[in-house]
Amino acid sequence: MSMNRAVDSSDVEMLPQPYLLFLGDTTERGYAKTAFGLRDWAGERCIGEWSCAGATVSADLPRLTPREARARGARALVIGVANAGGVISDSWIPSLIDALESGLDIIAGMHSKLNDTPLLKSVAERRGRRLIDVRTPPRNISIASGRKRSGKRLLTVGTDCALGKKYSALALARAFAKRGIDADFRATGQTGILIAGSGIPMDAVVADFEAGAAEMLTPDSPPNHWDVIEGQGSLFHPAYAGVSLGLLHGSQPDVIVVCHEPGRTHILGYPDYPLPDIAETIDLNLRLGRRTNPAIRCAGISLNTSGLDTGAACRLLAEESVRSGLPVADPMRAGAEFERLVDACLA
Amino acid sequence: MSMNRAVDSSDVEMLPQPYLLFLGDTTERGYAKTAFGLRDWAGERCIGEWSCAGATVSADLPRLTPREARARGARALVIGVANAGGVISDSWIPSLIDALESGLDIIAGMHSKLNDTPLLKSVAERRGRRLIDVRTPPRNISIASGRKRSGKRLLTVGTDCALGKKYSALALARAFAKRGIDADFRATGQTGILIAGSGIPMDAVVADFEAGAAEMLTPDSPPNHWDVIEGQGSLFHPAYAGVSLGLLHGSQPDVIVVCHEPGRTHILGYPDYPLPDIAETIDLNLRLGRRTNPAIRCAGISLNTSGLDTGAACRLLAEESVRSGLPVADPMRAGAEFERLVDACLA
Repeated sequence: MSMNRAVDSSDVEMLPQPYLLFLGDTTERGYAKTAFGLRDWAGERCIGEWSCAGATVSADLPRLTPREARARGARALVIGVANAGGVISDSWIPSLIDALESGLDIIAGMHSKLNDTPLLKSVAERRGRRLIDVRTPPRNISIASGRKRSGKRLLTVGTDCALGKKYSALALARAFAKRGIDADFRATGQTGILIAGSGIPMDAVVADFEAGAAEMLTPDSPPNHWDVIEGQGSLFHPAYAGVSLGLLHGSQPDVIVVCHEPGRTHILGYPDYPLPDIAETIDLNLRLGRRTNPAIRCAGISLNTSGLDTGAACRLLAEESVRSGLPVADPMRAGAEFERLVDACLA
Repeated sequence: MSMNRAVDSSDVEMLPQPYLLFLGDTTERGYAKTAFGLRDWAGERCIGEWSCAGATVSADLPRLTPREARARGARALVIGVANAGGVISDSWIPSLIDALESGLDIIAGMHSKLNDTPLLKSVAERRGRRLIDVRTPPRNISIASGRKRSGKRLLTVGTDCALGKKYSALALARAFAKRGIDADFRATGQTGILIAGSGIPMDAVVADFEAGAAEMLTPDSPPNHWDVIEGQGSLFHPAYAGVSLGLLHGSQPDVIVVCHEPGRTHILGYPDYPLPDIAETIDLNLRLGRRTNPAIRCAGISLNTSGLDTGAACRLLAEESVRSGLPVADPMRAGAEFERLVDACLA
């Protein structure tokens, strides 16, 4: 992203970059979402792609061997694919060793850890290279202080998981930067961390340190600087609400944007749990968020209309805006609605 | 505690018992709170005490060497003291090795881990004994399912940390048992776990698994069985609210009892955070708790009046009961008020 990183005073470590994206032996585009997300949102960090024999999926980046990528300045190979089990496939190992031998670190956000793979570990140690599992939180997180910090913060919150909180935050951060505003996207999940080049996997933090991790992620910054924070889970989620509340309290947002997918009626994977409505979601986030930032407000609503055609999407955005009295936009559909949402965030 | 353990179908592991309490080289009674708590609430699990040269504090239990304790049936030595740093003092090591050599496991709930002490680890391995750090959560916690479970559950919740949630739950569980009701105290912190002989340290669980840990701690049970669950933190705490919400959602309480210390005006250690009032605490816990148990209700209020004389305490309990319209008692002061609170829990 093209945002100013000079203001970044966070203690959160930056990932080595630029990246060579690794596509494994993937033949299904759906398994390469991380690579596509990186290409779309962090294109300037991606100098090429590499894959094993048998791969048919491409991110349409220059194809470079690890050695060529290193010569062009790459510092890390990023595993940009998943497979069904979220594991490191045996067929990838020769390519990963090649990367280490070529002088690249390896970064992964999968369930199974690079650091639990003895062969990779021994090669990395011998070559002085790093294996970075972005799902592993930093070790030096403090208990939250609750202290008010300088600078501005926006948090995307949701009626559920997996409906656009990351993309909404990315689009808003990019729109802020386009208007010349000093802004950082703050990542809280593995894909976001790869895109931002830093962040904290909030779901992997020990519960006592959850709000403290959010404070660490969004430190003091200049008065006009914005942290645009990727939300996690939902306060209404029967498993993850604690993650959402720790993130809300610790990030002390001045502004929330509520994310929702029209047509979703129940919590994903929890058919006994109806989705809360948007008004209820706004109300509960403001009530709980007020505890650490009494000035919190809701700037508007982000709807994921990827399942609708343009006409139907526009009608829905307009209706929902009238109903709620707030700006309503789909950040993936640029236009006047989205600019109004940005205006309201910055108002 | 004298509660029926036959119904315990929890997957949570039981600690080896009975215990020999270890008092270290303590000369300050304040550092021996865990030992006193164990004596008062789990007397039948404690067959004696042991200490190093220099100790002046006693829990008034028979003084037994580890060998004598083992001969009388003890299965573990419990470190019942803390020192300023929460570490394992060098001067304790000979006694701890003596315990392992005598055939006892060692249990501790301190910040520093038995299993991080190489000398103890090697002796324990050689003797086939266990070093149990009760602050380490089990490895097999699942993501919460949100599924309604059989049996009844009570959770103590609070306006803040450290004001009586554990003692209130212990007193209520004991009172339920006295009335012939099948009940288990469910421990969520290290001292509670030592008292109960099992439990999960909720503050040490990875955030994503917080509600799942609470589900694991309070599994399906017979329809008339009660789990009486030790609360943690407060929904209003700027650092720990996520822990409290995960515990509330996962434990799906039918009944909450709100714990408060009269005169406390701010969150402990957070002078910028005023304490919420009791009515607000009830309202927010019921609103959030309803998500996983729509039938949740507040049975009453538990006040920690340890700082007041008997007359002042009685007046305060009566006033607060009139004000709130709920039973209000100090569980440490047995009497008609407490019996009314128990009635209301079971109603």
